[in-house]
Amino acid sequence: MTRILFYLDDYPHDIWRQCIHAIDPTVEFMGNPDWGSPDDGDAYAFVWEPEPGLIARYPNIKAVFSLGAGVDHLTRDPDLPKGMPIIRMGDEGLKEGMAEYVLMNVLMHHRQTPQLLAAQRQRHWKRVFSLAAKDVRVGILGYGALGQRAAQALKPLGYNIAAWSRSPKDDELVTHFTGMDQLNDFLARTDILVGLLPSTKETEGLLDFDRLSRLPEGASVINAGRGSLIVLDDLMALLDSGYISGASLDVFPEEPLPADHPLWGYDTVLITPHSAAITRPDTAADYVLRNIKRIENGEEPENLLDTNLGY
Amino acid sequence: MTRILFYLDDYPHDIWRQCIHAIDPTVEFMGNPDWGSPDDGDAYAFVWEPEPGLIARYPNIKAVFSLGAGVDHLTRDPDLPKGMPIIRMGDEGLKEGMAEYVLMNVLMHHRQTPQLLAAQRQRHWKRVFSLAAKDVRVGILGYGALGQRAAQALKPLGYNIAAWSRSPKDDELVTHFTGMDQLNDFLARTDILVGLLPSTKETEGLLDFDRLSRLPEGASVINAGRGSLIVLDDLMALLDSGYISGASLDVFPEEPLPADHPLWGYDTVLITPHSAAITRPDTAADYVLRNIKRIENGEEPENLLDTNLGY
Repeated sequence: MTRILFYLDDYPHDIWRQCIHAIDPTVEFMGNPDWGSPDDGDAYAFVWEPEPGLIARYPNIKAVFSLGAGVDHLTRDPDLPKGMPIIRMGDEGLKEGMAEYVLMNVLMHHRQTPQLLAAQRQRHWKRVFSLAAKDVRVGILGYGALGQRAAQALKPLGYNIAAWSRSPKDDELVTHFTGMDQLNDFLARTDILVGLLPSTKETEGLLDFDRLSRLPEGASVINAGRGSLIVLDDLMALLDSGYISGASLDVFPEEPLPADHPLWGYDTVLITPHSAAITRPDTAADYVLRNIKRIENGEEPENLLDTNLGY
Repeated sequence: MTRILFYLDDYPHDIWRQCIHAIDPTVEFMGNPDWGSPDDGDAYAFVWEPEPGLIARYPNIKAVFSLGAGVDHLTRDPDLPKGMPIIRMGDEGLKEGMAEYVLMNVLMHHRQTPQLLAAQRQRHWKRVFSLAAKDVRVGILGYGALGQRAAQALKPLGYNIAAWSRSPKDDELVTHFTGMDQLNDFLARTDILVGLLPSTKETEGLLDFDRLSRLPEGASVINAGRGSLIVLDDLMALLDSGYISGASLDVFPEEPLPADHPLWGYDTVLITPHSAAITRPDTAADYVLRNIKRIENGEEPENLLDTNLGY
């Protein structure tokens, strides 16, 4: 019998329990705070932002499944047992949602929608002329499963797409840039930047004033990876000067974005509440049960965290 | 030698002249008001919203090319010579632009972007959960070349798509509804309605209070065909009551939309200035010259207006 210890604040647990049981009614699904006793036997944690130290108090946990693509909510726990396997969410629904978010926001910046929305508030019939998609250079910063899915969604529209990643990728969909020494070249050819990087030591504050200034004048910035990627004060300075024409931000260094943060008031910045890609219970339940089976069969689960890389 | 009489207010003519001459430098390109004399010999008009009576004053015009997909700017001219061939714009750039507009706006309504933009103005981190695309029913009202291209763009995202047209269409991409007696059934299964109908006697005011109320509660309305399709007062009443959750409107009964029109102030209505699909000079020049050749060879041009149908 499989035991799942589930943790998710602010949202109801019932839908998750139902989706797990729809696939395997024998699973013992225990929603926090009712996680039973560590003596109940082997268990798998399936969690989002658990309180620090919680995982350590249940030594019967064999592996931890993250409810979202990011795992920084787990790795920042100083008490997390060393060597604990962490599995990132690879749910199809999450990938679909991210592709939708990226496609929608690339289209919005390409079609000058933030500027048209600002004109609407002035009741101004603002004539605009947008480039053909083939003349718009999209740059995907971070080219894992989510970035590749986003590129597949963008491709049929004819955009000129490049991607940057830490290590070389084998894919013919886009032009590739690799490693820190090619980052500035990647930025210089990018009209619409799509940030899909995880939170690691290398990515924190990566997009500061200098790096953002490598983008061509008039560029737009989309960020749906982690909020730590962008130095927000630097981005705001470049929006103020008009060098950067607009942004779509789904993630922030502090979430929720505080109500008094000046970003809320920017006309050409579109703020969404970390909702670009939300794990869907039906497809995620299948993903978790499938990977518990792999672990129990002695196989490596999909998307096992490499603790050295941090993703 | 081919002679083109060109008419387009508010925009420069040079780019059009250049694009025509890039394909055939021998074309005599005459921009209004310099259309020469009717005695100069055979000519083709290539126009957008010419002043009424102008075409009639040049009996040397053999056919009129519309600069946009709509032709109501020509057919409403009481002096337009009877039997004058009118050719609608079938430019690839125009189709691409329309597909982009439809895809972007369907995504925006599916992903509750109008509601998130309204929340942003309140500095409110509003938690939302959007359906999977397969559970969102998109309905394309008007299934000509533009509607079919829009369906092709929407399909890879997994939307549940239907289309309505006056006459039956042969296409396996979507579920088909045909004729007035199937219109209400089509509306009843549509969460996001995409209006792409031309302006004809039948389509004027087609979407009134009763018809809009056939949509399920919470539906959204996109209109990028002609502004005469929707009775705006009825749409506003249904937005006020919350029955319709949002709209994207690119076309209006009067354009520009007057600055004092109440629609400008609706939080969940996205207004664009008839820019959903703008004819692109490079691809349009090719289209016009290609079809002049067909006419001179005695063939029927593409997208010749059927004056009985009005499109």
